[in-house]
Amino acid sequence: MAKKVFSEHDIKALPQRVRANFVNSLSGFKSANLVGTQSTHGVHNLATISSAFHIGASPPLMGMIMRPHTVVRDTLENIKQTGVYTINHVHHSFVKQAHHCSARFGSDISEFDAVGLTAQPSSKIAAPYVAESFVKIGLELEQISLIELNKTEMLIGKIVEVIFHDEHLLEDGYLDIESSGSVAVSGLDSYHSTKRLARFSYAKSDIEPSVVPVSASSGTKS
Amino acid sequence: MAKKVFSEHDIKALPQRVRANFVNSLSGFKSANLVGTQSTHGVHNLATISSAFHIGASPPLMGMIMRPHTVVRDTLENIKQTGVYTINHVHHSFVKQAHHCSARFGSDISEFDAVGLTAQPSSKIAAPYVAESFVKIGLELEQISLIELNKTEMLIGKIVEVIFHDEHLLEDGYLDIESSGSVAVSGLDSYHSTKRLARFSYAKSDIEPSVVPVSASSGTKS
Repeated sequence: MAKKVFSEHDIKALPQRVRANFVNSLSGFKSANLVGTQSTHGVHNLATISSAFHIGASPPLMGMIMRPHTVVRDTLENIKQTGVYTINHVHHSFVKQAHHCSARFGSDISEFDAVGLTAQPSSKIAAPYVAESFVKIGLELEQISLIELNKTEMLIGKIVEVIFHDEHLLEDGYLDIESSGSVAVSGLDSYHSTKRLARFSYAKSDIEPSVVPVSASSGTKS
Repeated sequence: MAKKVFSEHDIKALPQRVRANFVNSLSGFKSANLVGTQSTHGVHNLATISSAFHIGASPPLMGMIMRPHTVVRDTLENIKQTGVYTINHVHHSFVKQAHHCSARFGSDISEFDAVGLTAQPSSKIAAPYVAESFVKIGLELEQISLIELNKTEMLIGKIVEVIFHDEHLLEDGYLDIESSGSVAVSGLDSYHSTKRLARFSYAKSDIEPSVVPVSASSGTKS
């Protein structure tokens, strides 16, 4: 195996699409989610997002990065107008439909209908869930900040509702998103299922981490 | 399968550790990285990070979320002092060592030595790489912003160097991080290898995405 070193200059010199593929691969595996929103005219929208990330548990906050004036413009506009959105884990059974949602559809088109997924209304917020997803999260927008360095926007939402399957929640609060069929993304367009290597105990400096058993049937706390 | 709904109130009512496990599972699969830094006294530091995320390709920017006054305090301090750090993909062969780096070691201890990983100096920046990692990234700090909502800090770095293996880079710029043995994280402590489901073509509204072949031997552009 030959080792390769790319400098900042080498990256800059890559053709735009090649550079996008390369740099998008570097952060590592990413979450695969669909963002559900609704326009003020009631049109549903669904966008592919690989940039959702955990910010904190108390309060429960999730972030995502969006570039204005791109294919996510309707999603961004709907969130700004309604203040709410859903994040739905992409399940391995609908990766192709999920990727299709990254195409540019007209503002009057529901991506749910266009790609063949089912909009499921929320009793809590004015944004649709993806019925086929096994982990559905409802959020209220808390903050939008412009990242001046590249003019992208960071949205932070507070989690107000989570819909999942009882059997995937372990006693200690861990939601087994592998058992729930959630997938990971690499680069811009590669979807991956996962296989657990190990779950480890809380790390302490003076002792090697030990493996924690994961049993899907260990039930829930509540 | 019984469907379960957690409201904002239900999440808030969970014991702290349970809530942390639960909410950390919600964003989906996360990148597994080790952040390498060096103190002004020359002591190496290595921290487990699952919050690295892609911000943009031009310029190549990566973000990460850190909570001050926690186990990452040395990392944060080193980055503020030196302005540089490395991000190294966790390879499946050293997940236990990587997790061990999330323990609280003294400021005068090198986690490299403590957990059994090898510090590899960079010719470009004053921060160590993890020799055992197959994807190593050198960054210069561009920005630190406080997220007021929960007092975490978002660091944004510009990628100035990438070290990888030639055979993992495809012609179109996609770095095959599955072939490079990179792993994903879920929750706070679960590590997963991946299996590609498909790589899809650039999505267009009027046509279903098609599968793009991934060949590890397709070589590089340069």
